[in-house]
Amino acid sequence: MEKIVNDLVGYEGLKIAQNKNYFNFSLESVVLPRFCEIRSGKIKIMDLCTGNAPIPLVLSTRTNQEIIGVEVQKEIYDLAVDSVKINNLDNQIKILNMDIKDIFNKFETDSFDLVTCNPPYFKVSEYSNLNDNKVKSIARHEILVTLDEIVSISRKILKNGGSLVIVHRADRFAELLLTLKKNNFEAKRVRFLQPKIGENANLVLVDAKKNGNVGLKVLPPLVCHNEDGSYTEEVLRMFER
Amino acid sequence: MEKIVNDLVGYEGLKIAQNKNYFNFSLESVVLPRFCEIRSGKIKIMDLCTGNAPIPLVLSTRTNQEIIGVEVQKEIYDLAVDSVKINNLDNQIKILNMDIKDIFNKFETDSFDLVTCNPPYFKVSEYSNLNDNKVKSIARHEILVTLDEIVSISRKILKNGGSLVIVHRADRFAELLLTLKKNNFEAKRVRFLQPKIGENANLVLVDAKKNGNVGLKVLPPLVCHNEDGSYTEEVLRMFER
Repeated sequence: MEKIVNDLVGYEGLKIAQNKNYFNFSLESVVLPRFCEIRSGKIKIMDLCTGNAPIPLVLSTRTNQEIIGVEVQKEIYDLAVDSVKINNLDNQIKILNMDIKDIFNKFETDSFDLVTCNPPYFKVSEYSNLNDNKVKSIARHEILVTLDEIVSISRKILKNGGSLVIVHRADRFAELLLTLKKNNFEAKRVRFLQPKIGENANLVLVDAKKNGNVGLKVLPPLVCHNEDGSYTEEVLRMFER
Repeated sequence: MEKIVNDLVGYEGLKIAQNKNYFNFSLESVVLPRFCEIRSGKIKIMDLCTGNAPIPLVLSTRTNQEIIGVEVQKEIYDLAVDSVKINNLDNQIKILNMDIKDIFNKFETDSFDLVTCNPPYFKVSEYSNLNDNKVKSIARHEILVTLDEIVSISRKILKNGGSLVIVHRADRFAELLLTLKKNNFEAKRVRFLQPKIGENANLVLVDAKKNGNVGLKVLPPLVCHNEDGSYTEEVLRMFER
């Protein structure tokens, strides 16, 4: 296995174990934990579909509370465990190798305050361009878990009033809102990501509250890249610890 | 009745009859018709809750097809009729003084290609700050018609594949998408309006297709005002005929 330990781009001192055969760093991993509103005091945090654990790593720069990461694929789970170890974050971040449908064997329902998730973006259909690489396909396509299942599991594991912070493709935003509503989440804050200024949004961050009241804030979009392809100033600031 | 005939801001030669006791020009009236995708060829267009007809007036600069405007309040209807007359658009724009629930007495179902609507923005609740001015309250609050009724009537009057283009408060966006979905509309294009750069969106434009396929485009937001309160260049361009 070709395993590489990289700096988690821009995060001085924060390293991440990657494997080029699976997938590399994605900007969502930094933008999503930055978008979260994190209460001070004792809270329980779970990251679903954690991959090589970039979201828990970045969250650890914002809170000292325990973070549980759940990853179903053994090959990716191993990377996540390595990532946590090399950063000496074993005390704060626990990675579990299990299907998220099985978390209730280990945790009580209605027990977490914050659930984060960077889910598989693509539906599986006869038109799916499934990657020959099975590990990569599972990470990118709804093969083992669907959006509906992720949201339903999040509702079950979250306390009343707890938050699900999720990122998804902008073209599935309407479906995401419907799925949240169906599961008694109310979208409270939304932020779209534009690849460049003047371009349509490609991704959307949503902060949804379990059993929350109606009323949505649509934040200004995050423009990710300058014309020359470099990160914008606002994105670069998110990489500062 | 204190009736004033104003220029429709910026539209050279286009005038609008207003009455300061009711309401004045709103930017949505220009932005919404600019946001519409208007097919060439023979199409039927209806503007629900037309007010003093600003949307039909601006649409008339983009198409030569007939536009029906429907306004329930006699006092506002009179202004709309005046607006159409003073612009010599009687041949293109027909204003009807009726409740939109009654349009099926006059029009076939499944017969229109495009429905536009700038609806009452506020729900009626015990907390509603209803205006002493009844005419104004009806225009701003869901007293005579609700969002759900507007969307349901639009579905009924539109052909299969026809478009509803509607503007609403951004904080009711989730509810708007759910209401569209419930009525078999698929949101295809969305554009948020930001009062100024860096501020949360206050309004949202949605182009929804009756029985459309899934897949949403989120356009770059429209920033309406510069720091000094003046209209931005993009807004000013929308005022050009």
